[in-house]
Amino acid sequence: MIITLKRGAKQKEISAVSDKIKSLGYKPHVSRGKDVTIIGMIGEYAEKYKDAFEAMDAVEHISEIQKPYKLASREFKKSNTVIKVSRGVEIGAKKIHVIAGPCAIESRDLMFNTAKIVKDAGATILRGGAFKPRSSPYAFQGLGEKGLKYIEAAGRKYHMPVISEAMSVEQVELLSKYCDIIQIGARNIQNYDLLKAAGKQKKPVLLKRGMATTVKELLLSAEYILSQGNYDVMLCERGIRTFEDSTRFTMDLNAIPVLKKLSHLPIVLDPSHGIGIREHVGTMAKACVAVGADALILEVHPRPQEALSDGPQSLLPEQFSALMNELDAVAKAVGREIL
Amino acid sequence: MIITLKRGAKQKEISAVSDKIKSLGYKPHVSRGKDVTIIGMIGEYAEKYKDAFEAMDAVEHISEIQKPYKLASREFKKSNTVIKVSRGVEIGAKKIHVIAGPCAIESRDLMFNTAKIVKDAGATILRGGAFKPRSSPYAFQGLGEKGLKYIEAAGRKYHMPVISEAMSVEQVELLSKYCDIIQIGARNIQNYDLLKAAGKQKKPVLLKRGMATTVKELLLSAEYILSQGNYDVMLCERGIRTFEDSTRFTMDLNAIPVLKKLSHLPIVLDPSHGIGIREHVGTMAKACVAVGADALILEVHPRPQEALSDGPQSLLPEQFSALMNELDAVAKAVGREIL
Amino acid sequence: MIITLKRGAKQKEISAVSDKIKSLGYKPHVSRGKDVTIIGMIGEYAEKYKDAFEAMDAVEHISEIQKPYKLASREFKKSNTVIKVSRGVEIGAKKIHVIAGPCAIESRDLMFNTAKIVKDAGATILRGGAFKPRSSPYAFQGLGEKGLKYIEAAGRKYHMPVISEAMSVEQVELLSKYCDIIQIGARNIQNYDLLKAAGKQKKPVLLKRGMATTVKELLLSAEYILSQGNYDVMLCERGIRTFEDSTRFTMDLNAIPVLKKLSHLPIVLDPSHGIGIREHVGTMAKACVAVGADALILEVHPRPQEALSDGPQSLLPEQFSALMNELDAVAKAVGREIL
Amino acid sequence: MIITLKRGAKQKEISAVSDKIKSLGYKPHVSRGKDVTIIGMIGEYAEKYKDAFEAMDAVEHISEIQKPYKLASREFKKSNTVIKVSRGVEIGAKKIHVIAGPCAIESRDLMFNTAKIVKDAGATILRGGAFKPRSSPYAFQGLGEKGLKYIEAAGRKYHMPVISEAMSVEQVELLSKYCDIIQIGARNIQNYDLLKAAGKQKKPVLLKRGMATTVKELLLSAEYILSQGNYDVMLCERGIRTFEDSTRFTMDLNAIPVLKKLSHLPIVLDPSHGIGIREHVGTMAKACVAVGADALILEVHPRPQEALSDGPQSLLPEQFSALMNELDAVAKAVGREIL
Repeated sequence: MIITLKRGAKQKEISAVSDKIKSLGYKPHVSRGKDVTIIGMIGEYAEKYKDAFEAMDAVEHISEIQKPYKLASREFKKSNTVIKVSRGVEIGAKKIHVIAGPCAIESRDLMFNTAKIVKDAGATILRGGAFKPRSSPYAFQGLGEKGLKYIEAAGRKYHMPVISEAMSVEQVELLSKYCDIIQIGARNIQNYDLLKAAGKQKKPVLLKRGMATTVKELLLSAEYILSQGNYDVMLCERGIRTFEDSTRFTMDLNAIPVLKKLSHLPIVLDPSHGIGIREHVGTMAKACVAVGADALILEVHPRPQEALSDGPQSLLPEQFSALMNELDAVAKAVGREIL
Repeated sequence: MIITLKRGAKQKEISAVSDKIKSLGYKPHVSRGKDVTIIGMIGEYAEKYKDAFEAMDAVEHISEIQKPYKLASREFKKSNTVIKVSRGVEIGAKKIHVIAGPCAIESRDLMFNTAKIVKDAGATILRGGAFKPRSSPYAFQGLGEKGLKYIEAAGRKYHMPVISEAMSVEQVELLSKYCDIIQIGARNIQNYDLLKAAGKQKKPVLLKRGMATTVKELLLSAEYILSQGNYDVMLCERGIRTFEDSTRFTMDLNAIPVLKKLSHLPIVLDPSHGIGIREHVGTMAKACVAVGADALILEVHPRPQEALSDGPQSLLPEQFSALMNELDAVAKAVGREIL
Repeated sequence: MIITLKRGAKQKEISAVSDKIKSLGYKPHVSRGKDVTIIGMIGEYAEKYKDAFEAMDAVEHISEIQKPYKLASREFKKSNTVIKVSRGVEIGAKKIHVIAGPCAIESRDLMFNTAKIVKDAGATILRGGAFKPRSSPYAFQGLGEKGLKYIEAAGRKYHMPVISEAMSVEQVELLSKYCDIIQIGARNIQNYDLLKAAGKQKKPVLLKRGMATTVKELLLSAEYILSQGNYDVMLCERGIRTFEDSTRFTMDLNAIPVLKKLSHLPIVLDPSHGIGIREHVGTMAKACVAVGADALILEVHPRPQEALSDGPQSLLPEQFSALMNELDAVAKAVGREIL
Repeated sequence: MIITLKRGAKQKEISAVSDKIKSLGYKPHVSRGKDVTIIGMIGEYAEKYKDAFEAMDAVEHISEIQKPYKLASREFKKSNTVIKVSRGVEIGAKKIHVIAGPCAIESRDLMFNTAKIVKDAGATILRGGAFKPRSSPYAFQGLGEKGLKYIEAAGRKYHMPVISEAMSVEQVELLSKYCDIIQIGARNIQNYDLLKAAGKQKKPVLLKRGMATTVKELLLSAEYILSQGNYDVMLCERGIRTFEDSTRFTMDLNAIPVLKKLSHLPIVLDPSHGIGIREHVGTMAKACVAVGADALILEVHPRPQEALSDGPQSLLPEQFSALMNELDAVAKAVGREIL
């Protein structure tokens, strides 16, 4: 990191900073300009000590130079990570996988019907929430373990690995019995106990960016999982919160090439939440494929007006089926494939 | 809520919406304009069904009219809630309480030294983190239960109730043994299992707004706690995330009169995190008192440059002491008092 | 619009609102619930009076139902507007046009060299700034009219219509002599005198969304131009300002399907400014084509490291040339074409 | 500024950067770490060349060290600027001035009535808009020069200097005949021609921060005015745009101590626009005084429900009068005075 001292910093103050750098085992690089003195402190994890230097009176500003995450970084691993979810389902390779299903597992019937619909249309992974994070305590909160049994059975019948969301440490343990991928939701992006629990088990993790999470913080949250020994992490952009109110969130597609550059981890995109308006989900899904998604996650519901959550953004079966063909065309145009 | 139908909606579609409203036990109020038809659905918890109507094809837009929270609302309880933390410490009454101490409990000595400093200056509640939510897995994560023992002992010695943060359900149980107030941090504002756990125990809860949490969502998160039977909840504004990067966060003081209008719960303000720059914390603290805070929470550290976290925003003992007198003057100007 | 009254509003207050509605020539639709009374006021331009009702004491909240713009709306004109810029250059039809050139017109040579490069690669419209809006008064501000002469000549030589930005009313007049399209920049999105001036002349206008402009405000700014009689307006998304700082702006691609639904005007996308990092511009350009752009505007510079502005986001000639083929493939996948 | 090179940058690339620095007349400070090389380029206006270096392939990142503005900076002028508006009205000294009046000048009567009301309550400067920036072209746009005549006459009668907003270069000339202070509105914060025109005349300028303007950009816009020779500039915070929608804007009071540190220019705060809700304006005004405002600007209207603009945020005469006494108490608590 680069430490800029206040104008007119005295020699004593400059030495104090240099000495502190040496005491931490780094070498200070001092550059004195006419007005301003800057001191470089370069080396692994130097950024960890940023706060300590910022708290010194003579310090004006600190610029981070090195990345505060390591295992998630492209420097640590040059080649793209490919996550093997099940036989034939590898995320991060040429094929773009489509994860589809209802927002919430509402009943056994719904789960099986939707599984058939999305399988027939070309989806390769089945989604469905058993534990639902709802902003109101009075809203439907999910079927719990019963729901997990339904999705596991539906996945088995239609030969699809399944994904569901864990909201607590105990749910991670429960989900790892029933599911092939464990989802950490946007609201839990900085629930560090949960991240560590996801890192301690073996199933791949889909980590959703929070609505106010920077790209750097997303990679730091991934690092929490990786640092526990689980390297199978997918990063998921699902919309950030901005001033714009004509859509549910603002999808930050800019983040995709940036993340691909900084990290080797595969990227999943969620246009259903990202825009939140059913008739526009398909259009955004095409942009997601063009921008480099390794997988898409989409909400599909046979009767959205009866859905217990996220009805407004769930695709109808016929919309989903038509969309899959359109997405495949875009995928081929960028050297990938979906069907 | 008010349901606006698409232009040219057919009678059949209008009836479908009306019938659905009736089937849920509400009365539809249909108003037909030349171009647009709107249908009112008014009654307790009507907003709960918003998604179901939004998912109907003929629906253009839904405006929420009633508040989705109840126990937290001013309609439910007209008079301000006053929370009795301990003998003589009541939050929400005339006296504005100052909660002070180090960001993290780093050692027994630090905890006792800082306790004496803040007590002498007029603080009435002692703070200190035993479990620290850190964005990097490689940063100091807190002393855990050992830290809780230190803060409990320091509070006892200096006759101050103590507050610390819980990041998980188990920590809530642990903290309720050692602390007088349990803090839920900004990153856990939508960790619903944690909110419920805080609602099931008896100690007062200080709930920090997340960095992308709206006023409405803050009240819904409070509702999670209240709905479990714990009515002693303080709402804490500590800065939201915006485009401005010259300060750590943007303190949203506008939210204070708005929250006071919508809710009966007391408000705590955290200028240390809200601006994140030591030399400006005092200035913002004065604004916090003027805008109507019922309590302030401030970070104080005898040697910030050696602090293991948040050094740049921690006040020095002499700054804190001088500030307390200045704050008292502002408090008196708005009909309150601090010292 | 829908006027929600405060709980417990008295009959006298309800009548006052109704009477005001009648006095403005509209019909009030009153719906009384147990707790809440709402009053609909539906009709053209009703939203114009929102402030007057909001200022009444008994009014709790007003929801806008109708759009405050008219000429820009899809209701006013159902079919997509196709803007004829010159022979063979029609924006809004099947072909997606690529507008390319340097950020600033730095010299006659640069302008002619770049014109040849972009023409050879398949661009159909030439861009270049003669008047540059720079946040620092000490930065290069453009060549002015001399620059306009260069771009006009280069366009003529390479058979391309040209576009440049006007920052003031006088510049609109000047530009309409030299250019085929007049650009209004993001910083001037609410410079109403400038919008009116652009509306009073005949050349097509490319209107860039400001960095904090909502979709609704963008359409209102377009309405300023349309209301003066100039119907040839293109809406341009170029990135909004959010908390994310790893890219220059956050491109809001969600806005594209929303704008296409609300308005008949063609959409231009500017990934150069939208992401601001040269190596990622191409990736975002593909997403822009997939999401439904009618034209792209791209910065190309033969030697970006010598550029007087926006060097970091300007494409190299060989990058641009390769990109055009990739974009054409994506365009064909969504039923459009570029080359 | 500090130039960080990409990992593994070659000697040739390092030399290229160093040579470019030397060619611009600066001295390069090269620090080579094990993995990363950084190069300092320190000196006046070095930041001006940031783009040129960022466009070089070997460059990873550039951190700005020095401020890109000069005349507006505290380094340039250590003591606070005090602006003499008229005899006895000096902004930036001990007395906090209150600028009050209607949003728009609607009629001669309104202007004179309101002038008397605000004068009697203790306001020292009269406000009123003759040219109104309205987001809709169909909304009331102001009385123009006729309005300026009214406000000038009212100011003369009640012995108050007057302020009004200029939206174009011609209006600057016109206003400088009638008004004592010229306001540049939030929407024109980067209308550089307008800023230069304001800098070329002699009257003090009140410059409003735009809704997406950073503190740095606000100071750069002020620099545009100062660099033309007019040093009498007041900076005005009036709310920024964020995700929060329960208030019209989010008032960024954090910016006040930051601006006071960076610049010598006086600060004006506008809680009327900043929160946009009449009943909360007074509460925020107190926070504005506590945080260090040198002046407040407030909207007052005798009959807000008949106001042609901004009725919902205009104070009633009796509210304003009561508020002035409350503000004076807060002012005295922070060593200032209002009455």
